[in-house]
Amino acid sequence: MTTATAFKARVVNGVDVSALNETVAAIKDNAEIAKFNFRATNKWLGGAKNRTTIKEFTGALDEHRNGIQAFIVDNSEHEVLLGYDEAPNPVEWLLHALVGCMTTSTVYHAAARGIVIEAIDSQIEGDLDFRGFFGLAPDVRKGYDALRVSMRLKTAADPITIETLTKMSPVFDVVSRAVPLTLSIETY
Amino acid sequence: MTTATAFKARVVNGVDVSALNETVAAIKDNAEIAKFNFRATNKWLGGAKNRTTIKEFTGALDEHRNGIQAFIVDNSEHEVLLGYDEAPNPVEWLLHALVGCMTTSTVYHAAARGIVIEAIDSQIEGDLDFRGFFGLAPDVRKGYDALRVSMRLKTAADPITIETLTKMSPVFDVVSRAVPLTLSIETY
Repeated sequence: MTTATAFKARVVNGVDVSALNETVAAIKDNAEIAKFNFRATNKWLGGAKNRTTIKEFTGALDEHRNGIQAFIVDNSEHEVLLGYDEAPNPVEWLLHALVGCMTTSTVYHAAARGIVIEAIDSQIEGDLDFRGFFGLAPDVRKGYDALRVSMRLKTAADPITIETLTKMSPVFDVVSRAVPLTLSIETY
Repeated sequence: MTTATAFKARVVNGVDVSALNETVAAIKDNAEIAKFNFRATNKWLGGAKNRTTIKEFTGALDEHRNGIQAFIVDNSEHEVLLGYDEAPNPVEWLLHALVGCMTTSTVYHAAARGIVIEAIDSQIEGDLDFRGFFGLAPDVRKGYDALRVSMRLKTAADPITIETLTKMSPVFDVVSRAVPLTLSIETY
């Protein structure tokens, strides 16, 4: 399928390709449009439980989600990790972020190229050795030491093409390369 | 506060310190207990929307959450990113995972050391330049190029001690160091 076809098919994979192309053209004109700042606040609720509020973000030269209801989501831990299992734990939420980002990135980049996708079903898993977290083995890392993602797509495109699109994912980039993090702590 | 005090105070920061110490002792005895496998499945729902199911995991030589209700959570994108904003987007979920993990890790390690924490309130933000995602600038990465976390804790402990505990976080480890990811794609 050619780019011309993608332009004609205004919506591909549920993505408004005309709007997508306009966005890309606008960014080429003014790089500031591409600069986003996402944020969240979190409140500890005792033990393994804490609550995140996700609302405003900055991007495309504007502030968004002002005055609307925030997304409120919890972290917990299963009993075997000394919590009450009221919500997924942070390392499970990371799997959600990663597999979701790889899916959305595939869908958007496929749409931009006119590649029609009819279905995507994925599985993700990660191995984590808590000897790292507990400081019991200096050679064992604290986070996942391996992640595995299997995606099954209904599409005429070949797996190698799809893999290229999947790897455009921002969260895939984050887990594949270190991100500098500034930590500021205040006690009172 | 000494370790002996922590043992006496069975619950510190809402964490069962006796159980925590038993877990650590058990892992020292048999490293296999520390090995966990977390997983999730994800289904694309069209456009920017996809849905993750989080349920069973393996750890402490057992399978968990068999036969209980799964956690079901969505990814979406805001209108400015061509979605309908039905849920946080994947890079926002990543902030949730990260700040939550840093909080829980601080709470658990503080409890193990007998450090009492009365409150934690955090802010997290990340800068993301979408020129990377759109492939418009080879020097711009696809994911966050900077993350900033501010934590405010009500505790007698000093910020430098707290920082050590915070950095025990598995998700902090993941964003601070690359994780090997195996990707398998099948099309039909």
